Amino acid sequence: MTNSQKLSVNDLAEMVGGRVIGDGSQVVERIANLDTADESEIAYVDSKKFFDTARNSKASCLIVPVDAGGEFKSSAVIEVANPKLAFSIVGAALNPAKRRDAAIHPLASISPTADIDSLAYIGPHVAVGDYSHIGPATRVEAGVVIGDNVSVGSGCVIHPNVVLYDGVSVGNNVILHAGVCIGADGFGYVRDRMGYHKFPQIGTVVIEDDVELGAHTCVDRAALGRTRIGRGTKLDNMVHVGHNCDIGERVVIAAQTGISGSVVIEDDAVIGGQVGFGDHTRVLSGAIIGSKAGILPGKIVRPGVWWGIPIQPLDEYKRLNAHLGRLPQMRGELKDLRQRVKELEDRINKNQQDKSK
Amino acid sequence: MTNSQKLSVNDLAEMVGGRVIGDGSQVVERIANLDTADESEIAYVDSKKFFDTARNSKASCLIVPVDAGGEFKSSAVIEVANPKLAFSIVGAALNPAKRRDAAIHPLASISPTADIDSLAYIGPHVAVGDYSHIGPATRVEAGVVIGDNVSVGSGCVIHPNVVLYDGVSVGNNVILHAGVCIGADGFGYVRDRMGYHKFPQIGTVVIEDDVELGAHTCVDRAALGRTRIGRGTKLDNMVHVGHNCDIGERVVIAAQTGISGSVVIEDDAVIGGQVGFGDHTRVLSGAIIGSKAGILPGKIVRPGVWWGIPIQPLDEYKRLNAHLGRLPQMRGELKDLRQRVKELEDRINKNQQDKSK
Amino acid sequence: MTNSQKLSVNDLAEMVGGRVIGDGSQVVERIANLDTADESEIAYVDSKKFFDTARNSKASCLIVPVDAGGEFKSSAVIEVANPKLAFSIVGAALNPAKRRDAAIHPLASISPTADIDSLAYIGPHVAVGDYSHIGPATRVEAGVVIGDNVSVGSGCVIHPNVVLYDGVSVGNNVILHAGVCIGADGFGYVRDRMGYHKFPQIGTVVIEDDVELGAHTCVDRAALGRTRIGRGTKLDNMVHVGHNCDIGERVVIAAQTGISGSVVIEDDAVIGGQVGFGDHTRVLSGAIIGSKAGILPGKIVRPGVWWGIPIQPLDEYKRLNAHLGRLPQMRGELKDLRQRVKELEDRINKNQQDKSK
Repeated sequence: MTNSQKLSVNDLAEMVGGRVIGDGSQVVERIANLDTADESEIAYVDSKKFFDTARNSKASCLIVPVDAGGEFKSSAVIEVANPKLAFSIVGAALNPAKRRDAAIHPLASISPTADIDSLAYIGPHVAVGDYSHIGPATRVEAGVVIGDNVSVGSGCVIHPNVVLYDGVSVGNNVILHAGVCIGADGFGYVRDRMGYHKFPQIGTVVIEDDVELGAHTCVDRAALGRTRIGRGTKLDNMVHVGHNCDIGERVVIAAQTGISGSVVIEDDAVIGGQVGFGDHTRVLSGAIIGSKAGILPGKIVRPGVWWGIPIQPLDEYKRLNAHLGRLPQMRGELKDLRQRVKELEDRINKNQQDKSK
Repeated sequence: MTNSQKLSVNDLAEMVGGRVIGDGSQVVERIANLDTADESEIAYVDSKKFFDTARNSKASCLIVPVDAGGEFKSSAVIEVANPKLAFSIVGAALNPAKRRDAAIHPLASISPTADIDSLAYIGPHVAVGDYSHIGPATRVEAGVVIGDNVSVGSGCVIHPNVVLYDGVSVGNNVILHAGVCIGADGFGYVRDRMGYHKFPQIGTVVIEDDVELGAHTCVDRAALGRTRIGRGTKLDNMVHVGHNCDIGERVVIAAQTGISGSVVIEDDAVIGGQVGFGDHTRVLSGAIIGSKAGILPGKIVRPGVWWGIPIQPLDEYKRLNAHLGRLPQMRGELKDLRQRVKELEDRINKNQQDKSK
Repeated sequence: MTNSQKLSVNDLAEMVGGRVIGDGSQVVERIANLDTADESEIAYVDSKKFFDTARNSKASCLIVPVDAGGEFKSSAVIEVANPKLAFSIVGAALNPAKRRDAAIHPLASISPTADIDSLAYIGPHVAVGDYSHIGPATRVEAGVVIGDNVSVGSGCVIHPNVVLYDGVSVGNNVILHAGVCIGADGFGYVRDRMGYHKFPQIGTVVIEDDVELGAHTCVDRAALGRTRIGRGTKLDNMVHVGHNCDIGERVVIAAQTGISGSVVIEDDAVIGGQVGFGDHTRVLSGAIIGSKAGILPGKIVRPGVWWGIPIQPLDEYKRLNAHLGRLPQMRGELKDLRQRVKELEDRINKNQQDKSK
């Protein structure tokens, strides 16, 4: 939910490095879907499939690929190389993120040793522990709990009821959605006759710049050392990241994926939802793992598209599935062959009996 | 946890439209399981398998199907068409939901522009943002965070630490369990050379009347437009609902199921736990999807029972599994046939050599 | 995150019942990984694979197995039967759990009828309801919400934003990580023509001594009776435990596993991550269930290692997988046999035609 701005087509085109065709002085107020966009709204099209819809759109302005050609009903068109990207930039400009005036709410509880930047916002019922630092232009929304010795950079949005355990470090321009939990103890125990002893979980967590974590995602602290979420990485809701994981830069992980301890995911990997990683697996840069896949402990996942439980290259998975689909036919063929071999045996036996008569 | 009431068998029978056999003036205080029910307690039986247990129950009152017949030790019996439903109604009557006197706790933080009905309860450490509305007879428990421009209807129970982002709309008689998160940004990005740009997530979420969401369930806001949970729909714990989903009325979804963006689930569908939906799938009314199933993006799921990853009709799944179970036997048969064909070939070759001598 | 202590090698050896070789008077300040350990640090080795690394470690002290033999560069070595266990004990001694002075924060909201032990710590923005009890030396961190009639024992750590619903009981020395939710309503409804009626969820939850629950784990209250987590049991993050489950003692369950209603898991069972249990299953003591497994409702899981969806003994699963891997070869063999049988048939037919000429 954001506050809306009004901007001219020319302004927007400049932002996205696009070429204006038509009336660039027009004012745009809102982004909209292609099929519902109306006056004062801007929409985008990037697939030929929707060019017809686009040509008849009532939107005041359309963002189109450079090869779109032809006539549009809209009174202005912006040509760009990547319309979806341009639309995202325009959307951010028309709907700037919520701003809060710098303040510390009187119902917040701030340690006297905490260092809150004078340009930060601290909402009601927030707790900040000893020696923690909150950077400028960071919003800490209601109910957030920040432990001792935590560092949060500048320009962050910490949504309600997030919990940052002691010693955790969060970079700049990080977005943590509601209920995110960073730095809970990793899941490590040693068994003896009496039961389980906790293995020490005294490491930390480092969240680098430009990371966004979805609602209720949990990143556990390292046993020793650190758990890391690399710069520009985006995690969806309810992702579990175990202790000592090292998630690289610009990694994308969809909802409800679970990552066991000491997993390494290299830069730019793409991971689907509900995937499960055994401990000590390593995903190389260039790997794409489909939703619901399962990766056995210690596995190295090479570049390419992977699928299934346990994972295999998508091509092999499809081939195996094709074989599976032919199982009924194979059984039919087997039955037929048994019958024919039996007949052959009978005929040969009969032949030889005839001869030996 | 509820406060208990005392009611007579006659009163209860009237509530559920049942016929009393025995002493209707008796007082019932508690609901109980059939096998442990004792004096002042009421239990139910709906399966012939448990009729013997029921006949010997010490419960003061039993709810039984109309065709139960025979003798019961209980001094009163209520005959109804659907004993489990009647028991649920009786249970609600004997254990009315917790009530809070209307009040705004002094440790709550309420925007001066918020509109809190005089009959609502607002607990400690609750935050309510600008221009938000809370309806009559709604309980907002401790630690709940309600953003700006949120609307919550009447008769709702918002359990502790729920988060409603800006602009979200919640109907009447909705129950949101602890930690529910409504309206976090959907998971949408556009990639360029530098990394990921956020695709605008400026839509909203609409939760209709009589919905119940389990603990920690997350419903993301739409990119544009709205994400919807239809009237009377029930979601279990930790369900993830992505942006722009449209979940119909009276849908049931078990725990930890994950629903990607733009999925449509029509009225009355039944979905198991840990199911994963690819984006843009559509589940038609009448479909039942088994636990742990996986649905590929764009799939249309027709009425019937579905199972597996990727989903297939349960019958086909069972047939395939039967084929799989016979794989060892098939290999045995193949081996046997190879041997027999070899022998046939040898005999024929020998025959022909003999002849050609 | 913990405060660090300094202790001598002799002190540490005594704690773990180990034998000191070398300079026992040395002071150790920190635990460390074998490969990075340096002066004033202690590390452990328990696998021959790492003996070489260990012999060259710069750690001031090493914990080694009794049969390690040979020379170590470290100036002190502690020989023990179970090095990892000893290291855990040493780690706990060097990093004692955070302590809070007994206090009730002025921004907490405590019912006048609640009974808070004078040695308990209650953080800011905590709510405690009527007639609830908090035991001595228990820490209740910021934002925790405790309902009415809740009992929490001694020596517990209740991390931020945990929610304990009315009537829940928590034993001694229990650790509940951030966002844990105990006692939300179970997921039970009865369908009639109009929609779903809530089946009564008026039972409770009992968490026994020495339990640890990971961040965001949810344990639902029983419909009637109780849901139980047995003594010494450890659950990872985001585990879902349905109503009326009975989880025994010293059970270990990894992250994101989902347990439907009325499941029984006996003592000492070990369960992987993302496992799904159908309702009314029973896992016998001695069973080990691999990650991502699926268990059909009502199944009894016997001792041994189990795997797959639906689960089967690991050996059978491997055998079936081996058969599956040979499917392409089987199809090849079938094709070959069809060809050879065809040839045999042709030859025999030709033979007989020749003879009948």
